[in-house]
Amino acid sequence: MNAPFLNLTELPAALSGGLNALLGGRFSTSLPDREQHGRGESYHAMMPPQAVCRVQSTEEVAAIVRLCAEHRVPITPFGAGTSLEGHVTAPHGGICIDLGGMNRILTVRPEDLDVTIEPGVTRQQLNAFLRDQGLFFPVDPGAECTIGGMAATRASGTNAVRYGTMRENVISVTAVMADGTIVRTAGRARKSSAGYDLTRLLVGSEGTLGIITELTIRLYGIPEAVSAATCTFPDVASAVSTVVTAIQCGIPVARAEFLDGRTMKAINRHFKADFAETPTLFFEFHGTKAGVAEQAQQVEEIAKSLNGTNFQWASGQEELNRLWHVRHNVHYAVQGMRPGARVWGTDVCVPLSQLTELMRSTHADTQDASFYVTMVGHVGDGNFHVGLIIDPDNPAEMAEATAINDRLVKRAIALEGTATGEHGVGTGKRKFMLLEHGTGVGIMRTIKQALDPLGILNPGKVLPDD
Amino acid sequence: MNAPFLNLTELPAALSGGLNALLGGRFSTSLPDREQHGRGESYHAMMPPQAVCRVQSTEEVAAIVRLCAEHRVPITPFGAGTSLEGHVTAPHGGICIDLGGMNRILTVRPEDLDVTIEPGVTRQQLNAFLRDQGLFFPVDPGAECTIGGMAATRASGTNAVRYGTMRENVISVTAVMADGTIVRTAGRARKSSAGYDLTRLLVGSEGTLGIITELTIRLYGIPEAVSAATCTFPDVASAVSTVVTAIQCGIPVARAEFLDGRTMKAINRHFKADFAETPTLFFEFHGTKAGVAEQAQQVEEIAKSLNGTNFQWASGQEELNRLWHVRHNVHYAVQGMRPGARVWGTDVCVPLSQLTELMRSTHADTQDASFYVTMVGHVGDGNFHVGLIIDPDNPAEMAEATAINDRLVKRAIALEGTATGEHGVGTGKRKFMLLEHGTGVGIMRTIKQALDPLGILNPGKVLPDD
Repeated sequence: MNAPFLNLTELPAALSGGLNALLGGRFSTSLPDREQHGRGESYHAMMPPQAVCRVQSTEEVAAIVRLCAEHRVPITPFGAGTSLEGHVTAPHGGICIDLGGMNRILTVRPEDLDVTIEPGVTRQQLNAFLRDQGLFFPVDPGAECTIGGMAATRASGTNAVRYGTMRENVISVTAVMADGTIVRTAGRARKSSAGYDLTRLLVGSEGTLGIITELTIRLYGIPEAVSAATCTFPDVASAVSTVVTAIQCGIPVARAEFLDGRTMKAINRHFKADFAETPTLFFEFHGTKAGVAEQAQQVEEIAKSLNGTNFQWASGQEELNRLWHVRHNVHYAVQGMRPGARVWGTDVCVPLSQLTELMRSTHADTQDASFYVTMVGHVGDGNFHVGLIIDPDNPAEMAEATAINDRLVKRAIALEGTATGEHGVGTGKRKFMLLEHGTGVGIMRTIKQALDPLGILNPGKVLPDD
Repeated sequence: MNAPFLNLTELPAALSGGLNALLGGRFSTSLPDREQHGRGESYHAMMPPQAVCRVQSTEEVAAIVRLCAEHRVPITPFGAGTSLEGHVTAPHGGICIDLGGMNRILTVRPEDLDVTIEPGVTRQQLNAFLRDQGLFFPVDPGAECTIGGMAATRASGTNAVRYGTMRENVISVTAVMADGTIVRTAGRARKSSAGYDLTRLLVGSEGTLGIITELTIRLYGIPEAVSAATCTFPDVASAVSTVVTAIQCGIPVARAEFLDGRTMKAINRHFKADFAETPTLFFEFHGTKAGVAEQAQQVEEIAKSLNGTNFQWASGQEELNRLWHVRHNVHYAVQGMRPGARVWGTDVCVPLSQLTELMRSTHADTQDASFYVTMVGHVGDGNFHVGLIIDPDNPAEMAEATAINDRLVKRAIALEGTATGEHGVGTGKRKFMLLEHGTGVGIMRTIKQALDPLGILNPGKVLPDD
């Protein structure tokens, strides 16, 4: 799947001219623009595109794609640049299509519990807009990412155990395909058996099959009652077991987040807080008043039976908001433990029955690393992140981090898990695709080749080299 | 997408010889076998294959596919033959692969809430097996269909509003692709961002992209409390509005089924029952005891405000079972209204906000038809079925039924709905694919051509002719 074109160092003049004519001041070749669009938030090295196109409509994206197809020039889509696996880097050069400016909320339909938006709308922007109508969109990666980017990477977050991921919450997308064709993948019915599921083919394809330019997504009524609690544990295993047991008992927890002692320490520093620096769970319960109380009581009993102590309620909306603000910003808190460092966040996800032992042993394995290591998890899903706080310019640290991640991913895949629960493949996890998918990689390549025969859509991502 | 091979009238001798050597007595060319495999349960004319292969393993399916690829002979997969849209007919001839004998339940994992099964396992077989473990699989089309067939058609049923369809409940499949490659589409993690979603590409592809030979599906704990109720209404609109309002209020009803007066009449005859012959809702609530009582009370209030009367509880497990047995067998009850007739079941699904008016007007439009017409709906999803009780050999009735269905589907698509909520496309709904999907049909064709270049997998289904 090597790109069949030149690894560009400059754009063909005819292409630049065409893009300039189309976009005017929204076409940029300035170095700061290129560099700003050449990396995400993780350890991956910057690889800037030759130019940045700030787009305003589906038709504009289609026109750009047709021009790039004509010149066989790579295209890398860009939302907010919060990617953790190098999705927005341009390893083969070419142009970046920045969809961040397409951020209009087009139609909210409370009676259908859905909304149609442009891809640059961010999750906090959307939820702020919806709040007055008693509605919310639950999928919540930590970063203030765009919803288009979340769909492209099949993202999730803290609520997935109850509300699902982008896979379950995207109803339909409009996308521009590699030849400039505009497709709307589905209507707005909640279910359909009408042909191949193009929506879910594009969700998670990371801009390699098409560029998402509009989305219709599910909304939910803000629950009548929301309560949150924290609980501390003597060790990783007892904390994780508490959540696994609660899920296995069918308690519909909305959020069940694990944070290890080192993460709590980073949080205390970053937020000037005074949490106990020991394995901790953050819970949230959604439902009716009676339902929430019932759920919380059941979970508290499970926690106590597993040596949980200090089960504390978040009292009031302000404390609740603060709790989840802290959780959503763990990445930055942890990064703050070492100025100038980057966080390499691992992302395996395994069947629940395997989670406690994998997290326990991973925690033990990484405590002697030469750099700070943290661990957090959306443990209700079987998904957790080891945070490796490294200097990406230090080859020894990079080698050590690579080895930790390799070991972890291989163990997760051996347990019928996945290399990536929610961050995506990008450039960072391509090397595990064959191990995880076997003959499936050949099928993915066939699909990629059929839908993007020139290989211009986000080359160097998702699929390993032949 | 016309098949590039002969429309077979007999199999090549070398292929017959090879299949006979492979399968022995499980390879059959007898006319009763061929006819039994040549039609489903609906109005579509029988089109028998030239031979039937009763398979026992994935490897056997792969060997058959390789032989058929060599001879360019079409393959039609077959589960229980309960298809409603001609999926199991063989319009281009060829062989039928009958997966009904692959019906082993391989591994139940209560701690992961999943199970791995062969595709011929039926939903009632599975639930009978699981009951002792306190688990169940919720997706429940009316018929005693195979779970492989349900995955292939992206089926759903009465529980989808709460538990989702096959789209949400298949974790991974093993499939044989058109060249005989065996692929397992995913591990068992509850979520993954690792590459293209091959699971959901195969779910709903109706055997045209690959043949499903094993599935891992989600299970749920049997709820602590289950209660059911019926309620009657003066007209279609008030009944449907009751459900729409309940869903919009976020009440997590497990089942909300609409049945019109004529359906109730058919039920009374078939089951010797004495339901009121007026628009009726069947509800089911799942949860804790307190939660179920709370939900039911809220729904009863909504129903009363919309002129619902006679809100009655199913008391005890026996009455509850009888209620859903009646619902699941509506197809046969309705068919019984006219001996020798077939039921043409329409299957549109629309956004909830459009449902009440579409059902009201459709009900009004069809009451003067020259044959008996019924209406039932999984109204919490926006999905309903008009039952046209026709003689498929009567051209005037077929023309009348075709016109009713055409009008209904076109209106549903205009309302951003779909031609088929859960029955699939088969041969019956191909003609609506372009209207529903526009440029998406071209993308589907590209994928089909790439993954099945010889066109041997279930030709004549899903995609319209070029």
